[in-house]
Amino acid sequence: MLGTGRVGTTLAQAFARAGYEVVIGSRDPAALDEERRGQLGEVPVAALAEAVAGADVVVDALPGEHAVEVVSSLGDLLDGVVVLDVANPLDTSHGMPPTLLVKDTDSLAEQIQRACPRARVVKSLNTVNAAVMVDPGSVGDGDTTVFVAGDDPAARELVARLLTELGWRDVLDLGDLTAARGIEMWLPLWVRLMQTLGTTRFNLRIVR
Amino acid sequence: MLGTGRVGTTLAQAFARAGYEVVIGSRDPAALDEERRGQLGEVPVAALAEAVAGADVVVDALPGEHAVEVVSSLGDLLDGVVVLDVANPLDTSHGMPPTLLVKDTDSLAEQIQRACPRARVVKSLNTVNAAVMVDPGSVGDGDTTVFVAGDDPAARELVARLLTELGWRDVLDLGDLTAARGIEMWLPLWVRLMQTLGTTRFNLRIVR
Repeated sequence: MLGTGRVGTTLAQAFARAGYEVVIGSRDPAALDEERRGQLGEVPVAALAEAVAGADVVVDALPGEHAVEVVSSLGDLLDGVVVLDVANPLDTSHGMPPTLLVKDTDSLAEQIQRACPRARVVKSLNTVNAAVMVDPGSVGDGDTTVFVAGDDPAARELVARLLTELGWRDVLDLGDLTAARGIEMWLPLWVRLMQTLGTTRFNLRIVR
Repeated sequence: MLGTGRVGTTLAQAFARAGYEVVIGSRDPAALDEERRGQLGEVPVAALAEAVAGADVVVDALPGEHAVEVVSSLGDLLDGVVVLDVANPLDTSHGMPPTLLVKDTDSLAEQIQRACPRARVVKSLNTVNAAVMVDPGSVGDGDTTVFVAGDDPAARELVARLLTELGWRDVLDLGDLTAARGIEMWLPLWVRLMQTLGTTRFNLRIVR
C-alpha cells in the first residue's frame, strides 16, 4: 500500500481483514505519528521499496500530485505488478473546490502507466470516499456501482475479484485505461454532491 | 426552443404534449428538411428572435460549440428569461470520444450566463440522452437522478417543476451555476458508459 493517509490506512486494514498480507509503504516510516500508527493496528509500515518488493498488487493511495513521482521512483519493482490506482489528481492549492491537475485528454492513471510501462495499472475506487470503498453496503441497499479500467484484462479481473471481497456487487468494467479520464472527471461532481448532501456517505448507481 | 436537432425536437414535443405553447427557433426555418418538419408535428418553427420573443423559458438545445454565439445574438430578448441550458460543450472535431471545449474552472452554462448577464441560466438535463430526458420512467424503476444548477433560486425551482412534469422524481438542486462544471464533466464518463453498455437508455442514480 502506497500512502499513509486515510484512504491508504482504511484500505490496508480492510485487505488485512480479508486475509491478505499487507504492508504500508512510507517515504519515512519513522515519521508516522502515534495516532496514525494506532489506526493501523497490526499492519506493518516499511520503506517504499521494501513494502513493494514481492507484492502481487500495489495500491496507489497517494495524494494525486505526488503519485507519478513516487511510483516512478520504484522503477522496475513494479514490472508485471498490478497497480490499483485509487488516487485523484486534485489540485487543492487554490482552496475548495479543488480542480483537476490532468483531465479530458489524459488522466492520472495513464500518467502512472506511462511512467511504469510494464506495470499493469487498473483505475478503480477513486469515485467514492474511503469509508464507502471498504463498506459499500453502507450506502442505500448496497448495490451502487464501482468502475474498473485498465489495459490488461486479467488485471481488471483480479481487481474486480478484490472489490467483490470488499463487498462490491456492481463492478462495471469500462475497458482500457482511457476510461480513467471520465472516471477521474467524476470528482468535481462528487465534491459538489458532498457539499450539497452534507455527507461523504453516498455513491452513484448506474441504472440500465 | 433553440435547436432543431434531436434534443430540441424531442423536448419541444414533450413540452407541447404537457400543454405548453412551444415555438422552435431556427437560424433558417425555410431550410428545415421535410423529415425534421414531420417529426415536429404541430410545433411551429420561426426565426430565432421571433421564437424567443415573449417566452417565459428559453431552452438551449444547440450544439455546444454554437450555443454562446447564438444566445449572445439574441441580446436583451433574454433579459429576465429563464434559460434552460441542456447543451454539452463537446468537441467532436477529433472524432470519438469527444473532448470538452470548456471544463474544470469554467463551464458552457457559465459562459452563456456571462454572455447574457440578465438571463436566468439553469443547467439541467444534459446528463442524459434525449429519449431519457422526456421519459425518465423508461430507465430502471424511474427514480434516477437529474441535476439543476443556477444562480437564481426561483429559476431553479421553475425548472424543477418543469422536470417533474416530464416525469422526473429525483431532481437534485446543486445550487449556483458553478455546479455546471461537474455536471458537464460527467459527459466523458457518460460516453464511455454508452459505448460499454451499448445503449443510451441509462442514467445515474445518486444513492444517499
